[in-house]
Parts: sequence; C-alpha cells; structure tokens
Amino acid sequence: MRIAVFAGDGIGPEVTGEAVRVIEKLGLPDLELVEGDVGGAAYRKHGHPLPEATLDIARSADAILFGAVGDFDLDHLERHLRPEQAVLGLRKELGLFANLRPARVFKGLEGLTSLRPEVAQEIDLLIVRELNGDVYFGEKGMRTLEDGRRQGWDMMSYAEDEVRRIAHAGFKAAMTRGKKLCSVDKANVLETSQLWRDVVIEVSKDYPEVELTHMYVDNAAMQLVKNPGQFDVVVTGNLFGDILSDQASMCVGSIGLLASASLAEGSFGLYEPIHGSAPDIAGKGLANPMATILSAAMMLRHSFGLEAEAVRIEDAVAAALAEGVKGGDLGGSAGTVEIGDAVLAHL
Amino acid sequence: MRIAVFAGDGIGPEVTGEAVRVIEKLGLPDLELVEGDVGGAAYRKHGHPLPEATLDIARSADAILFGAVGDFDLDHLERHLRPEQAVLGLRKELGLFANLRPARVFKGLEGLTSLRPEVAQEIDLLIVRELNGDVYFGEKGMRTLEDGRRQGWDMMSYAEDEVRRIAHAGFKAAMTRGKKLCSVDKANVLETSQLWRDVVIEVSKDYPEVELTHMYVDNAAMQLVKNPGQFDVVVTGNLFGDILSDQASMCVGSIGLLASASLAEGSFGLYEPIHGSAPDIAGKGLANPMATILSAAMMLRHSFGLEAEAVRIEDAVAAALAEGVKGGDLGGSAGTVEIGDAVLAHL
Ligand SMILES: CC(C)[C@H](C(=O)O)[C@@H](O)C(=O)O
Ligand SMILES: CC(C)[C@H](C(=O)O)[C@@H](O)C(=O)O
Repeated sequence: MRIAVFAGDGIGPEVTGEAVRVIEKLGLPDLELVEGDVGGAAYRKHGHPLPEATLDIARSADAILFGAVGDFDLDHLERHLRPEQAVLGLRKELGLFANLRPARVFKGLEGLTSLRPEVAQEIDLLIVRELNGDVYFGEKGMRTLEDGRRQGWDMMSYAEDEVRRIAHAGFKAAMTRGKKLCSVDKANVLETSQLWRDVVIEVSKDYPEVELTHMYVDNAAMQLVKNPGQFDVVVTGNLFGDILSDQASMCVGSIGLLASASLAEGSFGLYEPIHGSAPDIAGKGLANPMATILSAAMMLRHSFGLEAEAVRIEDAVAAALAEGVKGGDLGGSAGTVEIGDAVLAHL
Repeated sequence: MRIAVFAGDGIGPEVTGEAVRVIEKLGLPDLELVEGDVGGAAYRKHGHPLPEATLDIARSADAILFGAVGDFDLDHLERHLRPEQAVLGLRKELGLFANLRPARVFKGLEGLTSLRPEVAQEIDLLIVRELNGDVYFGEKGMRTLEDGRRQGWDMMSYAEDEVRRIAHAGFKAAMTRGKKLCSVDKANVLETSQLWRDVVIEVSKDYPEVELTHMYVDNAAMQLVKNPGQFDVVVTGNLFGDILSDQASMCVGSIGLLASASLAEGSFGLYEPIHGSAPDIAGKGLANPMATILSAAMMLRHSFGLEAEAVRIEDAVAAALAEGVKGGDLGGSAGTVEIGDAVLAHL
C-alpha cells in the first residue's frame, strides 16, 4: 500500500496532515507514505508545478492523496507554469479519466446552503465527470488571422472510446446507487455532444436496469437549482462537469466536507477535497480537514477495496460533526488539529 | 415602426397574441405588424424551421417579437431541420450578437425560487451573453480517425473584434446600472478565454468608472447559488452564457416573467420570453404571457427608444401582479387572455 501524499499549496499541508494521521491510526499493514511537491510549492522549489520527480513518485504509488494547489502570487506566470497545471498534468499523465464527485447534504447542516432546507435535504447525487478529453486537452492556440485580427482557439472533441469508458463508469456507479443515470450534453448545438449521446445510448444496452435520461447542459444548470433531488448519477464531459459539479457542491453548502476521486482504469486513483488552497487562512490552523479525511476514505474504498475501513472513517467524521465539532466554514470554531483529534477519537 | 411577429410553436402564438394586444393598445403611430413562420410550425408548412421568406420579413422589419420554438415530435430530424435552428439562424443571419437577460426577483414572488428568500431577494443582475461566435458557430463535424474510431469535434474560438463589441455592450450596460461588470471565462484552461480576458481588459480602459472583475465559469456557477446578489452585470461568451443565464433565471424562480433581448449593432433586435414552447399546455389558454409582454416592453425601449411606453407596460404588469393576477406558473390560476386583459386594464 504505497500512497503518494501531494500536499500542495495554501492549506494543503495542514489538511493532508490530518488525513495522514487518520490513515496511520488505522494500523494498516504495509502502509508506505511518500511525499511529493506539486503546484506553486513545486514551482518555487523546482521551477515547475509538476516536476518529473513528482510524476515518478505518482507512478510508483497505488494512489495519491492530494491537498490543494493555487497561489495568487504565481498567476502572472505563463499558463503552463501556473499551479493548477499540476492538476491537469496529473490527470492526463496518469490517465485519471473518471472524476467522481458525490454531493449530499449532511444531516443537521441544511442551514449552510443558499437553497431552501426542503429542497437541499433531497440532494444525494454523484457527478461522474470525464477528465481526460474535451476542449481541455485538444489543440489550442493564439493566431493572427489573414486580416490581422488576433484569435484564440481551442478544439473540442470526443472519440467514441473516450465516451464509452466514462459512460461505463457512469452506469456502474448508477448500479451501486439508485439506478438512474442522467447524461448531460449540448447535442442540439455540438457534434461532440451528438457523438457523446450516441455512444451513451449504445453503452446503455449493457445496463438494462439503469434508467437513462438525457439533458441539455443549460437545462441541467436550471434543474440543479430547481430540484436537485431529482438526480441520482449525472455523467458528463470535462467542461460541463467542471461547471455542474461546482454548482452542485455549492447547492450542498458545506464545501469543507466534500471529497472527490479521480480514477484511472484499474484501481489507481487521486483523491482530493473539492475546496481550494484558501491562501487567506493558510498556516493558521483554521482549515477544516474533514473533506480531505473523507477523500482518504474514498481512497481506501476505491483503490484498496477497504470498504470497512472507509466506513469507519466516514462514521468517525459524522460522529465528530454530531458532537458539534465544526470548522469555521461550517459556522463552528474548531481548528484543524482539533478536528483531526475529534475524528481520531471516534475511529 | 415595422415589427415582425414570429409566434413559433407550442404556447408561442398564445403569448405573442397577448403581447400584440398590449402594443396595439398603446396607439403608437405608424405601427405595422407582420407575421412570419418559424420553428416546428415553419418546418411543417415549408419544410424548414427558418424559411427564406421569414428571413426576408425579419430583414424588412425594425424589430422582431418572438414567441418560442420547440416541438418534441420533430426531435428525430437532422439537426439543421430541428425547430431550435430557427433561433440560431436568426441570431447569425441578423447579426444579433448581444443577448441581454435581466434577472431579478419580483416583490411578493420570493416564494417561487428554490433559494432562501433572503438570498433570492438580493438578485438584480443582467447577463450579457455573446450570441454570434464561440463553439456554437465554429466548424464542426463527425469524422473517423485513422485507427477507425468515430470522433465528434467542434471548434471553439473568438476573434478580438467579436470580444470587443460584446465587451462594449457589457460595459455600456454596467454604466446604466450599478457600474460593476464581472467577465466570466475559463482562462486557466482555454486560449479562447485568454484572448477574451485580454480584450475585455483593453476595452475596460474606455470605462474607468466601471469596476471590472474576472471569474472562472465554475466559480461563477457556484457564486450564482451562494450569493447571486453580488452580481450587477455579467458578460460572457455564448456557451458559458447559455448555461449561466439559465441558471440565473431559475434562481429567480418565476421564469414566466423573464424577458430577453438579442441585439444587433444599431437598434435592431429580437425580443423573446426566456421560457420555451411548453407543448404540454399549448392551445389550452393556460400560458402566462407576462414574459412576452415584458419582452415587448424591452423592444420599445431598445429598438424604438420609447422609454416611457416601456415603463407603462412594465408598470401595468407589476400592477396586475400586485392585484393577484397570476398564471399557473406563479401559483395562481389566471389564464392567458385573463392576464392579458388585466395588463391592458392597467395600461
Ligand atoms: C484548476 C482547474 C484547471 C480545474 C478544472 O477546470 O478542471 C478545477 O476547476 C477543477 O475542477 O478541478
Ligand atoms: C435552443 C438552443 C440552441 C439555445 C442556445 O443554446 O442558445 C437556447 O438554449 C437558448 O439559450 O436560447
């Protein structure tokens, strides 16, 4: 069990620190943790947000526990040197094509969302976002047209195998949940989406028990506000998934509790909280580590098949919350280590 | 004053009918109304959702009052024959590059949104969406790659002049409102967005009074849920605008009241309710015509400079609402003609 720990920037080191304490407490046999530099921290040390050495550590590991990257002071750099590029680089280099973002409202925390409590409490959905293709990784550039105008351009595309594997991921996830899958696209305008829709329909033949629906992305953004409780699993492309998964997180309200997994074929995966590096509170012991601790639980489940241990961690977090141990983001006053201690106490 | 009335499908004819009654009641001199076929209705009559004859009527007019298009029974057609193509065709053929979508919560109707009333009541924003470029109108297609895989592709791009004119539209709108403009892009991933951002910053030099901010689209989708009251004017590209403007409408809740304008350079524009053709209630006299009536008011203001008349209509709608005249979409029971009558009575 070799786990790469990439803490990154801002509050990254603090929150991964607590998650590591939780994993270590489980007393798993053959546990090995290896640290690596990513993001702004890596740029400052090595001149690149994703150094070759970090990639080597990632490739030698069975899973990655990731903190956060992002550093306003480096926003002036050329795009390929900015901290966020570490995320894109890891996704592409390691074939992390399936991003799973569960969103549900935690009992007792309905007060944190902007949605009415009766709407919010129905939320229990999973967004399955494709991470390796779409307009993110197509050719792109700036050019000067013949008439002298500058133009920025990006190629959007999906090939059938790229859609097929994420569709399978979506259907499989639906099979373990409510057996409803909503595929989101913009097939009334985009050929990329038309192919997406055709392939999702082909793949659906393998999952006769799953009820498949299709929704345009503009309508999906509306329905996530109007009635988010209607969704079970949502499968969508990289760009639409970026937007909708963040929207869904905010519908839940308590972003400090939301975990995510980015999976490759097989059992390898990268696990990270969905919140960012929060430079404003970094180094102050104020960050809520629960989302990272819950990401570690996802890691034990998906990459190591340790369902019981994953549930133990999730229950411990729930127990700490029930006891009133809450970070500032949840309206409480518990600090990073205090929250870690509380979770450890409930393990 | 030559106004083209394109009623379209579903409830389109009913809602435009009431808006026409309202306009006629104003007794404007030299008013001329010309009808034209669009959408599924046009396809059924002429084999095309946007016949040449309709385009000719549009070109001969000073403004277009548009109902709605969309017809599930025609969804099996090739994309270029589907009803929605009428909308895309009109935008492109007539150079309707600036889509204005105001969203605010009407007094007394805070109960209709899924957002908490205290969050919703702060909403008073305008989305300025580019309508003539982006991945909507780039080259696109299906191809078979060398290795035999099918691929769908769409070219996303913006040239500097396309960004410049919509940026000016955004800044000008901000000058008439709260002097805050938020430009939404995905410049951390897209070259199209990087050019967008660069040009918006250039244009901002002409509007020193406007406070310009930039936001990534995923964050914008979050902020529209968390705290929509922070926005005054939002300017964004065609694709992101499609998603965010629909999300913003749903934050308001009362979609049956939301109007929109799609403007060309000069005074020409197309005005339409943001709701769709609602085939389920079509022909039953149940549709709420208020959004179309308010679209007619926008038309008088933007295309004909008739500010006083626009305000008269808007006040009449507000008065009818205050009196309790509400369509089924607002939790009331007033029918299409009854609502039209009530607005007319208050003119
Ligand atoms: C940092 C950025 C490139 C990234 C993305 O757009 O994928 C982020 O928003 C995310 O969702 O993980
Ligand atoms: C019908 C469709 C092509 C259109 C769009 O995507 O622009 C619609 O969603 C809109 O926003 O007017």
